Amino acid sequence: MSIITLTTDFGLDNWFVGTMKGVIKSINPEADVVDIAHGVRKHSISEAAFVLRNSYNYFPPGAIHTVVVDPGVGSKRHAIVVKTRRYHFVAPDNGVLSYAIEGEEVETVVKIENEEYLLAPISETFHGRDVFAPVSAYLSMGVQPEEFGHPLNEITRLTPSVPRRIGDREVVGHILCVDPFGNLISDVTAKLIEELSKLSKASRFRILIRDREVVRICHTYSDGKENELISLIGSSGHLEISINRGRAGDVLGMGEGGKFILKVV
Amino acid sequence: MSIITLTTDFGLDNWFVGTMKGVIKSINPEADVVDIAHGVRKHSISEAAFVLRNSYNYFPPGAIHTVVVDPGVGSKRHAIVVKTRRYHFVAPDNGVLSYAIEGEEVETVVKIENEEYLLAPISETFHGRDVFAPVSAYLSMGVQPEEFGHPLNEITRLTPSVPRRIGDREVVGHILCVDPFGNLISDVTAKLIEELSKLSKASRFRILIRDREVVRICHTYSDGKENELISLIGSSGHLEISINRGRAGDVLGMGEGGKFILKVV
Amino acid sequence: MSIITLTTDFGLDNWFVGTMKGVIKSINPEADVVDIAHGVRKHSISEAAFVLRNSYNYFPPGAIHTVVVDPGVGSKRHAIVVKTRRYHFVAPDNGVLSYAIEGEEVETVVKIENEEYLLAPISETFHGRDVFAPVSAYLSMGVQPEEFGHPLNEITRLTPSVPRRIGDREVVGHILCVDPFGNLISDVTAKLIEELSKLSKASRFRILIRDREVVRICHTYSDGKENELISLIGSSGHLEISINRGRAGDVLGMGEGGKFILKVV
Repeated sequence: MSIITLTTDFGLDNWFVGTMKGVIKSINPEADVVDIAHGVRKHSISEAAFVLRNSYNYFPPGAIHTVVVDPGVGSKRHAIVVKTRRYHFVAPDNGVLSYAIEGEEVETVVKIENEEYLLAPISETFHGRDVFAPVSAYLSMGVQPEEFGHPLNEITRLTPSVPRRIGDREVVGHILCVDPFGNLISDVTAKLIEELSKLSKASRFRILIRDREVVRICHTYSDGKENELISLIGSSGHLEISINRGRAGDVLGMGEGGKFILKVV
Repeated sequence: MSIITLTTDFGLDNWFVGTMKGVIKSINPEADVVDIAHGVRKHSISEAAFVLRNSYNYFPPGAIHTVVVDPGVGSKRHAIVVKTRRYHFVAPDNGVLSYAIEGEEVETVVKIENEEYLLAPISETFHGRDVFAPVSAYLSMGVQPEEFGHPLNEITRLTPSVPRRIGDREVVGHILCVDPFGNLISDVTAKLIEELSKLSKASRFRILIRDREVVRICHTYSDGKENELISLIGSSGHLEISINRGRAGDVLGMGEGGKFILKVV
Repeated sequence: MSIITLTTDFGLDNWFVGTMKGVIKSINPEADVVDIAHGVRKHSISEAAFVLRNSYNYFPPGAIHTVVVDPGVGSKRHAIVVKTRRYHFVAPDNGVLSYAIEGEEVETVVKIENEEYLLAPISETFHGRDVFAPVSAYLSMGVQPEEFGHPLNEITRLTPSVPRRIGDREVVGHILCVDPFGNLISDVTAKLIEELSKLSKASRFRILIRDREVVRICHTYSDGKENELISLIGSSGHLEISINRGRAGDVLGMGEGGKFILKVV
C-alpha cells in the first residue's frame, strides 16, 4: 500500500482536496492518502516549503509527497516529479520543494508532459485535480518518473532565510512562521546558538524583539510564567519566541518576516 | 475495499465527523472513508449540492456518497438512499443530491425506514451518527437499497440557478459560491458563453459587477495584474470573477446570490 | 487493521497532525488512523475530555484512542497508556481521559518510560510526534502496555461539572461546550430532568438564561420558530439551548462555564 501525502492551501471547506482524493482513488484504489496540511497560507510558497520540510521525513521511505501551493497554475511554470533516494515529490516547480530537498539525495527530476497520465481536458486553474493527483497515483502504482516527461537540470529554489551575523556576539534573526499556538518560529537554529556560545565563551542570551526583551531560553512552554515572553528550542530545531498558554505572535503583533536581535551576554 | 465519501457542515473542530467514522468502522472496518468537505456553510443545502456535484464523479464507480447537511433533522423529511448506475448516495431528502443526480441514471430511490440498520435509540438531532453513517456502512457491505425501506417516486430537487437572458447579447448571471481563494463562481457556463458568441457573431465580453467593469476573460489566475478584476472559465466549467492572488469576493463585497451583467460587445 | 484515533488541539493548518501520522505509518504502515477532532480549544483539557467521551465508544473494540491536548508538554506530568476491557488510550496524564474512562473497566495504567519505543532525541515541545504517536503505533502492533513502563495507581481526573440542585424543583446548570452550530450543551442530563419531573410531579420546565426565558423543551432543532430560544435533549443525552438555524451561543453571548436556572413549573 503506497502512501501519498498532500500539502495544499486549499482548506477543507470545499471540494478541492476531496476531488483530488477521488482522482487518486480512481487510478489506484489501494493508495493510502494522508493529509499533511491544507491550511498553508494562501499562495505562500515559503510556508508550504517549511511545512513539508518539518514533516516529510517522518514518513516511511517510498512515500510520495504531493504539494499543491500553486499561484502560477496554468502559467508557464513547470509541474515536476523529483525522485530522491527515499521519496518521490510531485509539485509545481516554484520552490515549494526547496527545503525538503536540501536534505535529500536527488536522483531524478522530470517535468510533467505526458498527457497520457493526466486528466483530459486539463483545466487551467485546477492542476491539483488534473495533473498532480493523477501523476501521484500513477507513481504509487510503479510508473517510473521518466514516463512523465523529459529530465530537468535545475529546479526552482527559494533563498532560505538565514540570520544576519553581527560579530561574534550578535545576530539578527527572522520569523519564519507562526505556529497554531501563536509561537514565533525563527531562522535561528540550535546549532547557531551553540556556535555563538562557543565563540563568545558565554552561555546567556538576551533577545530584543519589538520593544520587549526576552531574558531566558527555557526548556518547555510550561516553564514560562503567565504572560512572560520566553524562548526555547522548538521541535524543528529552531529558536521560538513563546508565551506559556498564550500567543506570542498576537501579543507582539508579529508574523512571518519579523526581525529580532539575539545577543550573547 | 469500499469508498464512503462524507460531505457535511459539521466542521472538524468537534466530535461529529469522527463519531460518524467510528460508527462506519464498527460496522465495516474495511470501509475506506474519504472526506469531501466538512466546511459547507451551515444549513446551506444549495452549497452542499454544488460541492457534491463538483466532486462526486471523480470517485471510482461503486463509491457511496454520504451527505449530511440537514437543517430539518428529526422533522418529517425523509432520509433516502439513491442508487444510480455508478454510485450510491445517502442523504436527507432536502435537495442536497439535486445537482449530482442530474448527471446520473437513477435506478432506485428508497426512504430509510428499517430500524434494524440504524443505531438505537435514534436521537432526534444527530442522524449523521444514527442513520446516515450506519446505512452507508451497510451499503458498503453489500446490503441492497431495497432492504432499507420502501421505494420513493420522487425526490426533492432544488431549482437550479440559471442566468436570465436579455436578448442575444446580454445575460444576468448569479454567484453560486465563493471558493476558498475568494473567487466568485457564477451560474454562467462556458457553453452559454460559446452560444452567445455564435448568436451575436462577436467574441468580446464585458462584465458589469457592482460599480466595476471586467473587460477580459483570461485563461488563468496569474494572467491578472495586481488588483485587476478578471474573469475566466474555472475548473467546474463556470465563469468566475477573480483577482490574481487576491480575493474578488471580499473586494466586491459579494457572495452567494450576487448578480452581474455579462454583455457581448 | 488496527484503528488509531487522534484528538488534538493542533488544528489542521500546519504539519503537526500530518507528522504524527507519518510517525505512525513508519512504525505500522497498516494502521488505520482516524481523526476524531483537531480543533479542540487550545489547551482545553476539559473540552478534549468531553469530545472524547462523546465519540470514543462508537469505535470498534480494539481501537486505540490517542489524545494530545497537552499544555504541560515537557514538564513533569506523566504520559500514560490506559488499557480498558475494550480500548487502549494514550495521552498525557492531565485529565483528558477522565470522562471516557468513567464508563470503562480499567485494567492497566502505565506511565510511558521505555525510550526504546520513543523517537530519539525526544523534543521537549512535541510529544505528539516523539511519544504519543510511536507508542500508539507500537500498541497497534501488539506491544503490551506493560512494555512501555511501570504501572501507575492513579490517574489525574477532572472534577466533572454537575448541576447544583436547589430543592426538588430547581437546578443551576452549566454550559459544558458550544457545538459547531452554536448550540449550548449543558451539564443537565435527560436523566436529571426525568428525576425532577418525578419528584415534583410536574412535567413543564422553564429555563432562565441571561435575561431570557426558554419555555419549552422541543424534540428537534427545526421545532423552533425563527429566532426562538428553545431547549432539547441533544445527541449526547444532555440538555441544549438552541435556536433553529441560528446560533444560541452568539445570541446569548455565552460559552463554556455559563450558568442558567432550570425550574419545574
